[in-house]
Amino acid sequence: MASSTTTSEDALRRALAERQAAVDAQAEAVRALKAAGAAAAKTEVDASVEALKALKVEAGAAARRLQAAVGAGGGGAAREEMRQAVVNTLERKLFYIPSFKIYRGVAGLYDYGPPGCAVKANVLAFWRQHFVLEENMLEVDCPCVTPEVVLKASGHVEKFTDLMVKDEKTGTCYRADHLLKDHCKEKLEKDLTLSPEKAAELKHVLAVLDDLSADELGAKIKEYGIVAPDTKNPLSDPYPFNLMFQTSIGPTGLNVGYMRPETAQGIFVNFKDLYYYNGQKLPFAAAQIGQAFRNEISPRQGLLRVREFTLAEIEHFVDPEDKSHPKFVDVADLEFLMFPRELQLSGESAKLVKLGEAVSKGTVNNETLGYFIGRVYLFLTRLGIDKNRLRFRQHLPNEMAHYAADCWDAEIECSYGWIECVGIADRSAYDLRAHSDKSGVPLVAHEKFSKPREVEKLVIVPSKKDLGLAFKGNQKMVVEALEAMSEKEAMDMKAALESKGETNFQVCTLGKDVVITKKMVSISMEKKLEHQRVFTPSVIEPSFGIGRIIYCLFEHSFYTRPSKSEEEQLNVFRFPPIVAPIKCTVFPLVKNQEFDDAAKVIDKALTTAGISHIIDTTAISIGRRYARTDEIGVPFAVTVDSATSVTIRERDSKEQIRVGIDEVASVVKQLTDGQSTWADVSFKYPSHIGPQGDQE
Amino acid sequence: MASSTTTSEDALRRALAERQAAVDAQAEAVRALKAAGAAAAKTEVDASVEALKALKVEAGAAARRLQAAVGAGGGGAAREEMRQAVVNTLERKLFYIPSFKIYRGVAGLYDYGPPGCAVKANVLAFWRQHFVLEENMLEVDCPCVTPEVVLKASGHVEKFTDLMVKDEKTGTCYRADHLLKDHCKEKLEKDLTLSPEKAAELKHVLAVLDDLSADELGAKIKEYGIVAPDTKNPLSDPYPFNLMFQTSIGPTGLNVGYMRPETAQGIFVNFKDLYYYNGQKLPFAAAQIGQAFRNEISPRQGLLRVREFTLAEIEHFVDPEDKSHPKFVDVADLEFLMFPRELQLSGESAKLVKLGEAVSKGTVNNETLGYFIGRVYLFLTRLGIDKNRLRFRQHLPNEMAHYAADCWDAEIECSYGWIECVGIADRSAYDLRAHSDKSGVPLVAHEKFSKPREVEKLVIVPSKKDLGLAFKGNQKMVVEALEAMSEKEAMDMKAALESKGETNFQVCTLGKDVVITKKMVSISMEKKLEHQRVFTPSVIEPSFGIGRIIYCLFEHSFYTRPSKSEEEQLNVFRFPPIVAPIKCTVFPLVKNQEFDDAAKVIDKALTTAGISHIIDTTAISIGRRYARTDEIGVPFAVTVDSATSVTIRERDSKEQIRVGIDEVASVVKQLTDGQSTWADVSFKYPSHIGPQGDQE
Repeated sequence: MASSTTTSEDALRRALAERQAAVDAQAEAVRALKAAGAAAAKTEVDASVEALKALKVEAGAAARRLQAAVGAGGGGAAREEMRQAVVNTLERKLFYIPSFKIYRGVAGLYDYGPPGCAVKANVLAFWRQHFVLEENMLEVDCPCVTPEVVLKASGHVEKFTDLMVKDEKTGTCYRADHLLKDHCKEKLEKDLTLSPEKAAELKHVLAVLDDLSADELGAKIKEYGIVAPDTKNPLSDPYPFNLMFQTSIGPTGLNVGYMRPETAQGIFVNFKDLYYYNGQKLPFAAAQIGQAFRNEISPRQGLLRVREFTLAEIEHFVDPEDKSHPKFVDVADLEFLMFPRELQLSGESAKLVKLGEAVSKGTVNNETLGYFIGRVYLFLTRLGIDKNRLRFRQHLPNEMAHYAADCWDAEIECSYGWIECVGIADRSAYDLRAHSDKSGVPLVAHEKFSKPREVEKLVIVPSKKDLGLAFKGNQKMVVEALEAMSEKEAMDMKAALESKGETNFQVCTLGKDVVITKKMVSISMEKKLEHQRVFTPSVIEPSFGIGRIIYCLFEHSFYTRPSKSEEEQLNVFRFPPIVAPIKCTVFPLVKNQEFDDAAKVIDKALTTAGISHIIDTTAISIGRRYARTDEIGVPFAVTVDSATSVTIRERDSKEQIRVGIDEVASVVKQLTDGQSTWADVSFKYPSHIGPQGDQE
Repeated sequence: MASSTTTSEDALRRALAERQAAVDAQAEAVRALKAAGAAAAKTEVDASVEALKALKVEAGAAARRLQAAVGAGGGGAAREEMRQAVVNTLERKLFYIPSFKIYRGVAGLYDYGPPGCAVKANVLAFWRQHFVLEENMLEVDCPCVTPEVVLKASGHVEKFTDLMVKDEKTGTCYRADHLLKDHCKEKLEKDLTLSPEKAAELKHVLAVLDDLSADELGAKIKEYGIVAPDTKNPLSDPYPFNLMFQTSIGPTGLNVGYMRPETAQGIFVNFKDLYYYNGQKLPFAAAQIGQAFRNEISPRQGLLRVREFTLAEIEHFVDPEDKSHPKFVDVADLEFLMFPRELQLSGESAKLVKLGEAVSKGTVNNETLGYFIGRVYLFLTRLGIDKNRLRFRQHLPNEMAHYAADCWDAEIECSYGWIECVGIADRSAYDLRAHSDKSGVPLVAHEKFSKPREVEKLVIVPSKKDLGLAFKGNQKMVVEALEAMSEKEAMDMKAALESKGETNFQVCTLGKDVVITKKMVSISMEKKLEHQRVFTPSVIEPSFGIGRIIYCLFEHSFYTRPSKSEEEQLNVFRFPPIVAPIKCTVFPLVKNQEFDDAAKVIDKALTTAGISHIIDTTAISIGRRYARTDEIGVPFAVTVDSATSVTIRERDSKEQIRVGIDEVASVVKQLTDGQSTWADVSFKYPSHIGPQGDQE
């Protein structure tokens, strides 16, 4: 938040955010209920739609109140303005650069410039420390180019799509849901002749937009006469467009490949090797950091919806019968904003909940999932994400894949609203099973029993001789069908054969029933000793959108404060030292040999200590130089004002201490490593209110 | 080298390597001379080919001598065997995994498994420290997906190709040069009826293989009756295949994109922004680490020729008129194997040369290029590359692009021969000019003069009125042609007009000569004051193939030693701590509560210190556990044999010291950070020859 924001405005903003959250929740509740599809739920759906409308009206009122408070700028406008201030600073200081800018760029592709690249490297290094090192995860690094067979097994070839319409004359493509959304919004905002019924209908469409099928979307587009926005030409029917970048592996053009849409598949296909590497013990986690690709139809939302991005993903493999976690106690006492399904469905907002309670009450499905939610919370807040603008939202039933046991998103609030930045899902055994089936390689784990266990097992023994006599060339199909019977089918047949001597039996592969007689098959339940259990592990997957986290971090870290003269607002990023792109700047106060020499000594010591820093010898005022370094979030500034000692200034408090030249590197190292706080060193070293402070 | 190698074998190997180098050099010399293309050089080429043959014979003899020394295994076979031992260990310990293995993989794609991934992360972290941090480089991070226009400007769309032939019936593709090479080699090795003339011809083809055009290659394939190796079907004529993975950006299918073949272009297109970010000062360097892609026709050479790989590239921008480097003195005294053009052309081997001399004698074109050669040498040897198997080879004139000023490859010797791992090229102004031309955005630097300089400038002022009267509709073309005259053309015209009053003038765009009279144009040289110089910077580009460096590092670090019982050979990787995937292993000597508790305390302290480690509590002998940790190159093993103190064992010497439990983390940190050597800590702490040592 900009420091100029008044308290009442803050309160209003918060109220607005809460209302908006409630609106979102209602919309999601409507979707959930629709998806449940039960006719009985219909009334409730209608009620929800009504509630939603009421909430939207209320949100509108809150927005107007905020607008009044902020003045002419307005609520949405204030958000927009704040975003512009951040984005301008980010682009001016090269945190980001639109890729291939001199060729007018490509939508949805961005470069990280020097400070952005350093922040990214720092975030990833901390991710490695916090997850891979502390949890002893097995990190892997797989290629982006992926053969089709892998992504067929995962379902991406079939299902990783958005619905698209084409301008029938020019061929320009649009996302079908975006056009319908824009149309409804514009009508609602600008068409003063709209009847209340029509308005209600349009609002309903907006509420259920994400659940419309291609046919339903197409029908609405036709009904409302929506045309291509640029040319007013008619549009094609909506059809699914696969969002993967397709390519061809090798020179023949016959081997289709894709740029991976996520890094997870590379881990799943390696499960067998990783399980052996881990001494055939569960649970264990594998992790991967890497590029992923998504060929968006028409990217919006600037830095949040891009065509290439860095993912950091963890696949934690666990026995489905035991999802407890030995270190859950370490996070059980954490308390933060959680937004479980029930609160969303009842139109309430996220609430402060203790993680231990959420798991013990069953709100969160299991300890392992809970443990990762806690670790993600610690990761994000230690990076500098504001804990008041971070919530964990549970997926509604219709948002989750059918196989998922439970699913929570870490959502961070920024000027675009609540943004999903980390997904934490219990995906059960789905992924490993899919690749087992497709590849024919069993991706399973074994549990050796300390002593063998007795189990009853169905044993079906077809008599090939008798079946051959009866069915000749069809014998093989009948044998296979008999062997494939479920326990119930087999026991029914056994009973029929024992009572009647024969029974009809459907053989799908023959497309007809055959008569099975008693001598053709023996069916029994036999007791066996089993020495181990073979099972497909469950997967708990925390998946981090690194670019989104970084963007939200930029918004949360940004503030402005007046310059000394109060003539202008200065930009500051309050990055914690761990994230800051550069840990300290060294300024010789004035240009002379003595100070330059001292700066060189410090430069060398900082380099040896591995501390990223810059030496700024430009001949501008020290105040200007401080402002320049604040604007890229450098936490400490070393001003060389004598040949023996220097001052170190902390960015946010602007306090200064005096330190001997030979101690500078070690003090900065302690501060940036997290071994000491500013308070610690302020206590130890004399504070300084020197001439250079006056110039700020 | 395997520790079992005898000294005489070593010497022979070295002799063989030298002979092979000489052979390579001759082959390159032949190519260079051919490329020079001068008829006068013909005799010399022939002489070189003869010399080459002689050297090949000699190399053969050396190989036979080595074979005799090693025994049945043989020279090439010994290399092959050594490679197999390394690769087996690498794959078994999951340093590498063939990607998508359960689907039978994809040629040329590999995963890094847990220890490989850690080594890669360590190499990249050291690269960042050694180059980006120490040299204050501007690191950027650009997307892999790249629009066609960028790669048209860089020349990749037109020229990034290999020559390919297709099986005319099945469509299977082959690299044309590979088939011809295989044919010649097989004939030479196996056809005992080969006439000496034919043998000479085949050897000549092998020597000039890389310089053959598509037509020449096609003619040879026809002449020798080479057919598809798998089917014996006839082959198509060779044609160029572009090695970039092609894709389509956005949904229309109209915007062609490629997966970048190098990271450099992302830096070049950002030059303008980066130059401003650097305060409009030269020199400065930008750096990028990222994935690059190359759709090989049929990948060979295992881990060295892959379809996706990590590059780390530096683009150092410098004033073409001043390529001195202030820190060159820091590397001038380094002495290492250099292989300049002259030595290659005269058939000699690489020689130890002092870098300072190589620059002062002009062998290396300039100080900045020399500085980077020195820094690359330090980088590679500090990683653990054997300095005796590392050489800097200068490109021969025919290997270099026409615009390049000078070019050196860091080549590392491994079982595949001398492999190019880092290219260090002075690419002059080529890349920035190419993107300036294509984009219309000037990518230039400015040098402000301290006082304005007087320069003479050509001024051509066409009289549009007179030209319009004379040429009507063609006036514009004539004006443009006049303004485009070079200084010489203009001064010639001026002289002609002054002496004769008129002159003929060719206007290309009109396709004819016109008559220009004196009043139609004024031409003069005028003195002007210039305040700055505007120029395109030169680029010096060190480009690192990270995967190749890592693979060579694995071969250089690998050795075997007998187990205590001498019953088996144990594998060891002698990684320096900076590279080691895991810095230490903690073993409780026997399973009891006291030791487990101590191990937990150490575990926690190591995690806090950010030291990657594993706790091995398996109930196998300590000797086996040491062997297991040696095999992935863990430098230090901590054995918990009491509740108060432990032993630390160094991997290669197998020496042990005794250290208090509370000191373990700090001792290991000092050792792995490079603050202390093993000798330092051995001096400080008591050495230990304990019971667990006996079990090894």
